[in-house]
Amino acid sequence: MAEKKKTTIVLFSGEYDKAMAAYIIANGAAAYDHEVTIFHTFWGLNALRKDEQITVNKGFMEKMFGKFMPRGADKMGLSNMNYLGMGPKMIKKVIKKHNAMPLPDLIDLAKELDVKLIACTMTMDLLGIEQKEMMDGVDYGGVAAYIGDAEGGNINLFI
Amino acid sequence: MAEKKKTTIVLFSGEYDKAMAAYIIANGAAAYDHEVTIFHTFWGLNALRKDEQITVNKGFMEKMFGKFMPRGADKMGLSNMNYLGMGPKMIKKVIKKHNAMPLPDLIDLAKELDVKLIACTMTMDLLGIEQKEMMDGVDYGGVAAYIGDAEGGNINLFI
Amino acid sequence: MAEKKKTTIVLFSGEYDKAMAAYIIANGAAAYDHEVTIFHTFWGLNALRKDEQITVNKGFMEKMFGKFMPRGADKMGLSNMNYLGMGPKMIKKVIKKHNAMPLPDLIDLAKELDVKLIACTMTMDLLGIEQKEMMDGVDYGGVAAYIGDAEGGNINLFI
Repeated sequence: MAEKKKTTIVLFSGEYDKAMAAYIIANGAAAYDHEVTIFHTFWGLNALRKDEQITVNKGFMEKMFGKFMPRGADKMGLSNMNYLGMGPKMIKKVIKKHNAMPLPDLIDLAKELDVKLIACTMTMDLLGIEQKEMMDGVDYGGVAAYIGDAEGGNINLFI
Repeated sequence: MAEKKKTTIVLFSGEYDKAMAAYIIANGAAAYDHEVTIFHTFWGLNALRKDEQITVNKGFMEKMFGKFMPRGADKMGLSNMNYLGMGPKMIKKVIKKHNAMPLPDLIDLAKELDVKLIACTMTMDLLGIEQKEMMDGVDYGGVAAYIGDAEGGNINLFI
Repeated sequence: MAEKKKTTIVLFSGEYDKAMAAYIIANGAAAYDHEVTIFHTFWGLNALRKDEQITVNKGFMEKMFGKFMPRGADKMGLSNMNYLGMGPKMIKKVIKKHNAMPLPDLIDLAKELDVKLIACTMTMDLLGIEQKEMMDGVDYGGVAAYIGDAEGGNINLFI
């Protein structure tokens, strides 16, 4: 039996459009029977946060990062033409109109397609994000897990 | 006969300097006899727009995106030190002074070197960009085309 | 004897957090016995600049770029939540608190692990950066050197 092809994406960016691109490529690769991993680090972690407020016991600086960073995919801004939040509203409207999938649905689909969603524990520490703030179905790992996955990958991207 | 090496670049970003980097790598790889594809999606599509105004029949939001996004490579801003348009002018001057190639020339060279330029049809829909607004010699495709190209690639980048 | 695995990173971005991600991945790959190269281009070159002022003999525009770009890793801003310099200070404090490594230490570690640090000569020319402004232990090359390295790479990233 042939070995499965592999796609590994580092999602570093915390913008709606970049996360959309990451999840569209991930889901496309999964549909083509790749084994797919998205490794969320730095601002990309925000895509995996639950959208409710979670009480955590953190230091001051971690609280500041946690407070000002978006809670979950739906709250993220655009990398371009953000216009104080107008851009994301417009993008979501055109997504709906053209029957494309908004980011939260793309993430749900990824889970259904068995895309492995990993959150980087080192940057969670730095930004003060705790596991109880994260959605279900997320795995946790560090750079070693990433290198292990990526070194055998056919498609490796940093987004 | 040995199989050709392959380079596949996703150009997501709409900035002059990032598009320059994409095209310099693409042209370099083509010169080293790689089969090269640049897959333009989201803001990267603007590199392929004609610089004249094209009358299109669009909905309101698509018109807004179309109106505010740069028409063509020469109108794009910098990702860094843009300073309300000063940065791009300075970059273009130093490019000229050092006999380097400005972005529109890099795109022309890519075509001569048979770099395949693909525009992502799904994000064209979202941003309201029509084929008649695009320069000649562009192919059209979706994420499936990208995965097909990239999974056999030696160099895969997301820019 | 098995051939060594290879990781090649283009560091295009000039932000502290993105450069941190690049160097963490590079050092991780080197720890897993990969042959690792970071190819610094455009704003990524600033990570390799010495932090003192160096007198150079440049044209006006090159002087402007040189003056306004950060001298060295410690002076770089964040890609997100920069808040006029507050963000970098906060990140450096949490890095210290969590016993993680700040960027200058990550770069020193990379050198100890024999990560090859290349500065792109073409963009040095454009941005008016001279070799005497750069830290020791840096190699110099162009896009051809990059393609040669990357085409045999297991992990290729553009950051």
